Amino acid sequence: MNFVTRDHTILVPAGEARGALLRAGQHLTVIDPEGEQVGDLFAYPDDPSHGRHLSAAHTRAHVNRLFPQPGEAFVTDLRTPVLTLVEDNSPGRHDMLIPACDAVRYAALGAPPGHPSCAANLNTVLTQAGRDTHTTVPQPVNVFMDIRVGTDSLAWFPASTKPGDSITLQAATDCLVVVSACPQDLSVINNGSPTPLELHLH
Amino acid sequence: MNFVTRDHTILVPAGEARGALLRAGQHLTVIDPEGEQVGDLFAYPDDPSHGRHLSAAHTRAHVNRLFPQPGEAFVTDLRTPVLTLVEDNSPGRHDMLIPACDAVRYAALGAPPGHPSCAANLNTVLTQAGRDTHTTVPQPVNVFMDIRVGTDSLAWFPASTKPGDSITLQAATDCLVVVSACPQDLSVINNGSPTPLELHLH
Repeated sequence: MNFVTRDHTILVPAGEARGALLRAGQHLTVIDPEGEQVGDLFAYPDDPSHGRHLSAAHTRAHVNRLFPQPGEAFVTDLRTPVLTLVEDNSPGRHDMLIPACDAVRYAALGAPPGHPSCAANLNTVLTQAGRDTHTTVPQPVNVFMDIRVGTDSLAWFPASTKPGDSITLQAATDCLVVVSACPQDLSVINNGSPTPLELHLH
Repeated sequence: MNFVTRDHTILVPAGEARGALLRAGQHLTVIDPEGEQVGDLFAYPDDPSHGRHLSAAHTRAHVNRLFPQPGEAFVTDLRTPVLTLVEDNSPGRHDMLIPACDAVRYAALGAPPGHPSCAANLNTVLTQAGRDTHTTVPQPVNVFMDIRVGTDSLAWFPASTKPGDSITLQAATDCLVVVSACPQDLSVINNGSPTPLELHLH
């Protein structure tokens, strides 16, 4: 478990999550070292007057798209910027439509009880950070997750990242960011084989 | 304030919200008597083992689309069906991407404090029903709200409903449903003029 504030790289082991405390203005680069790996990202402002957490729904309305473009911000449930997308060195396919995987999802997929999930991973990190856990996990920012909106349905693809692809965010306010290297091995999104992520704080 | 269980029509005055207690199997028809009016709909199972509330994110994953088609279900944060869309007598344009309007949204639009909002309307009904209110309101089911997903951005249109258009839902489990006749008069969605809705329980 690492909570550090600058010039540090945190390994997120495959199927696990890690947190990082960012100060306003700091950058977080999420790196996919092996490629084809989704990260579920959550953010919590230190100052609750800025909102309780990053909100995908309010971000969609704020940027008027399904996902921000570089230069645009992710906002909280109080419509306040928490992270800005500053650089995208990936194919640019990310998702804010699909919820975090959880125990119910893995049970439906036939996994035995105890399969790791992004929802459980998030609550583990929040507990370690001394924060309240969620009964209902917020909609994550699913970096590198390739979900395409068709005319009639959603189409799911393996993450299109190559080894070393990355996305860089800048904190708009002091916040805790949690990233889960998604443990999903029963659908296509990680191409069947979850791998690690890296968080570079700078 | 009306909480009734069958064969009853509830008027939802323009800009206000009302709740209805549904038993499993019962139908709720949401009628737009004057046309061009959005309704923000929320649902809460009586049995918390079925989930805390209707979840747009989990519904998208469940039906693999941005909005259910007739015959498909809205599910909770525990991925359990709470309402089934059984009939759509409208142009079929509905939204589950945009959050409920709230005080922050109206302040940004230049409205004076105290402008009614779907978020405040929901909490008013939850209080009247003796339920916990929300700090962060769940993503609503925005019936009749015409938001179209373009390649680069979202496009907002006035509700495409004609007078008398309706949508009918069936309860999959005992639940409280709240519908807010959206008070938004500062964007295009209600064509500038909020009007009432009707809830027909049958």
